[in-house]
Amino acid sequence: MSYFDAASSAPLHPVARQALLASLDEGWADPARLYREGRRAGMLLDAAREAAAEAVGCRPDELVFTSSGTRAVHSAVSGALSGRRRVGRHLVLSAVEHSSVLHAAAALEADGGSFTEVPVERTGAVDPSEFGRALRADTALACLQSANHEVGTEQPVARVAELCATAGVPLLVDAAQSLGWGAVPGGWSLLTASAHKWGGPAGVGLLAVRKGVRFAPQGPADERESGRAPGFENIPAIVAAAASLRAVRAEAEAEAARLRALVDRVRAEVPRLVPDVEVVGDPARRLPHLVTFSCLYVDGETLLHELDRADFSVSSGSSCTSSTLTPSHVLKAMGVLTEGNVRVSLPAGTTGAEVDRFLEVLPGVVAEVRERLGAPAAAAPSPAPRASLVVDSLGRRCPIPVIELAKVIGEVPVGSTVTVLADDEAARLDIPAWCEMREQEYVGEEPADRGTAYVVRRLT
Amino acid sequence: MSYFDAASSAPLHPVARQALLASLDEGWADPARLYREGRRAGMLLDAAREAAAEAVGCRPDELVFTSSGTRAVHSAVSGALSGRRRVGRHLVLSAVEHSSVLHAAAALEADGGSFTEVPVERTGAVDPSEFGRALRADTALACLQSANHEVGTEQPVARVAELCATAGVPLLVDAAQSLGWGAVPGGWSLLTASAHKWGGPAGVGLLAVRKGVRFAPQGPADERESGRAPGFENIPAIVAAAASLRAVRAEAEAEAARLRALVDRVRAEVPRLVPDVEVVGDPARRLPHLVTFSCLYVDGETLLHELDRADFSVSSGSSCTSSTLTPSHVLKAMGVLTEGNVRVSLPAGTTGAEVDRFLEVLPGVVAEVRERLGAPAAAAPSPAPRASLVVDSLGRRCPIPVIELAKVIGEVPVGSTVTVLADDEAARLDIPAWCEMREQEYVGEEPADRGTAYVVRRLT
Repeated sequence: MSYFDAASSAPLHPVARQALLASLDEGWADPARLYREGRRAGMLLDAAREAAAEAVGCRPDELVFTSSGTRAVHSAVSGALSGRRRVGRHLVLSAVEHSSVLHAAAALEADGGSFTEVPVERTGAVDPSEFGRALRADTALACLQSANHEVGTEQPVARVAELCATAGVPLLVDAAQSLGWGAVPGGWSLLTASAHKWGGPAGVGLLAVRKGVRFAPQGPADERESGRAPGFENIPAIVAAAASLRAVRAEAEAEAARLRALVDRVRAEVPRLVPDVEVVGDPARRLPHLVTFSCLYVDGETLLHELDRADFSVSSGSSCTSSTLTPSHVLKAMGVLTEGNVRVSLPAGTTGAEVDRFLEVLPGVVAEVRERLGAPAAAAPSPAPRASLVVDSLGRRCPIPVIELAKVIGEVPVGSTVTVLADDEAARLDIPAWCEMREQEYVGEEPADRGTAYVVRRLT
Repeated sequence: MSYFDAASSAPLHPVARQALLASLDEGWADPARLYREGRRAGMLLDAAREAAAEAVGCRPDELVFTSSGTRAVHSAVSGALSGRRRVGRHLVLSAVEHSSVLHAAAALEADGGSFTEVPVERTGAVDPSEFGRALRADTALACLQSANHEVGTEQPVARVAELCATAGVPLLVDAAQSLGWGAVPGGWSLLTASAHKWGGPAGVGLLAVRKGVRFAPQGPADERESGRAPGFENIPAIVAAAASLRAVRAEAEAEAARLRALVDRVRAEVPRLVPDVEVVGDPARRLPHLVTFSCLYVDGETLLHELDRADFSVSSGSSCTSSTLTPSHVLKAMGVLTEGNVRVSLPAGTTGAEVDRFLEVLPGVVAEVRERLGAPAAAAPSPAPRASLVVDSLGRRCPIPVIELAKVIGEVPVGSTVTVLADDEAARLDIPAWCEMREQEYVGEEPADRGTAYVVRRLT
């Protein structure tokens, strides 16, 4: 088995395992108690806080442990918004934030506030100036991830932090994907992270709030974790999280260089080995261990299933994968192809041999899925041109509409159009993305009696 | 060391440790993923849910795992209140609920709702009729613990559940202290619990919501745990929680009988060995492993410190212990003495020899603390009676005001009064409690230039 989904959850780091075991015996008591077991638990908690704060780059009293990264984000957003309620109830965030940030924004809106989503470039990065322009006089908080969880693109956090500072708006950085690789530089006000992303245990998130940032924890509170994370502290897991963060940081530079080389190999080889593939995300400013590509004429669920059968565990931002029927909001915001999407995120220790075997297996798997779906061959000869065409894909799921489009585009003369009737929502993203990849013109969409008519003009 | 504070947190059960270790290797992946590691994690989660639901006595799809018992309570209260918002925004709870329930009630009040605290009898139990009378047409939710965490008294849950059902009000039962001993009987609508109380790991709470109960989760949600507990599932801890719940239940009947005998020994021997002690809580309807008593003329912090030095870890509801300066709301609601309070809660496996040693050590420790504070000897001879007296204890912390009162009560004639001037808040509880214990009349309190004047009439 090759597990290539570290961005979803990393296997437990050996140091985390060791620290967890040791503190199961030492850290189970209530750290608020005055007796021996309580004092011992309290000392473990203090030491873990110091280690984690050092890795984050903040003071220990600025950092609390939450029960997950999601909880850290929810608490950070609600606490920061409430702390600045007098300023206003407007939130700025990038369009490619983690769903936990989007859910917090939706909760704000449901409660009468509002938010602005800053669009991203095709690489997945926000334009700092555009982010800056979204800041308003009533903006209570801005949110920007350090690096994207689906495509690995690093965000211009330092520059955005400057703009936020100038505007007097606190910036929350979701560092879930990057904290294991290094501290987030620049002038953030709040920072969140999640231990199981760096090889720590599940059940531990970090929430750092810089001194001086107005922060009013929401919901019922208790005296634990400075009133910012109610409930009994999970000290064994916290100790394991802090110890493993320190351990992965010690290995980060060397491991990043090693994994970056493996990812570069995937980035170079996949388009060479598999026809009709788009590698997405910034080619240079990116996480070292993560690469994402999309394969035309392939559905994500089948592709994942076949890769799993071939012993590779990867994830996908396509629709119909895991429990979701809508394609990834990240790929959508980037305007790239969502069909046949594969995210490869290598855990520490991945070998070159594993990556080589993946590159060996992938072309056959993609070809087989395409054949099963009746996709056009990469260099199929065109029959004689016909007049403009309508393709009816109503009731058929992606990638069928794109496959049908690709099959017939050669049948109309250059300058003529193909109209695809489709009612699968993913077609709205994938037909324009296909046009961009294939250098055809996407004319636009029109409502139809059933579904939507997508019009494409043949250019080449 | 004898750790006698299981009600705060129990040491990890061997089965929990074993299950945790096994599932660290098997259960770290995202259960929402389709690949092998994800499916395996998902199967572990499903199995844990089935086991926990069986122990709770509900359907697996009625049960979700939260990140702590506190979180389970907060989510249960906010979700149930919102689900019945049309009915009203009134909450009924007993005056001796766990602080997490009180905090949820306070949050409701801060948000414009209201609550009624049902007082308890001197045993710590609510009177079901009184609880029933507090239910109103606009009551959205009622909360009653299965057993009290500080004094061990079992609440009349089944009877209260009937009254709630008649009134059409859902009943939330906080079963944190009792679930390891057995399922909560009767018609509860919502139930919460906390794994580290029964020997499971920290970081796992249970929230059960019966089908048909209106429930609207509050705050940002995601697709995990039926939308009721956002954030990545902590599967190794969940597996360990479920496995240990099953294990402690298998041992519960025998262990309860064994610990009940040890607790009976403490209940009988402490008043015999230590003068001026009040054993609190219901003598029969109580948790098997927990006993609480209060010692006159002793301050809780010193007592805990001395017991810790003698290798006993216990907790206290007195003020000035751990991080709090106010005495336990539970002891206050019961109207019993808060000073020199000791809660002994025996973890599974406690031996008779440990309890014997505690009974050996306790009298000396209490006597020493009393001597240091200048407390009156148990049977001090009274000097010739004086006229009514005023004792100035301003600026002095409990138990000094009670000690001063006890020293001089014999100096006034029967029928005359002693007035104690004090500004420590605990005096308000402990002077009436002392009067009850000593069969003196507590006349009442009056505001004074500084602090409060507590008036006591000598009867014996």
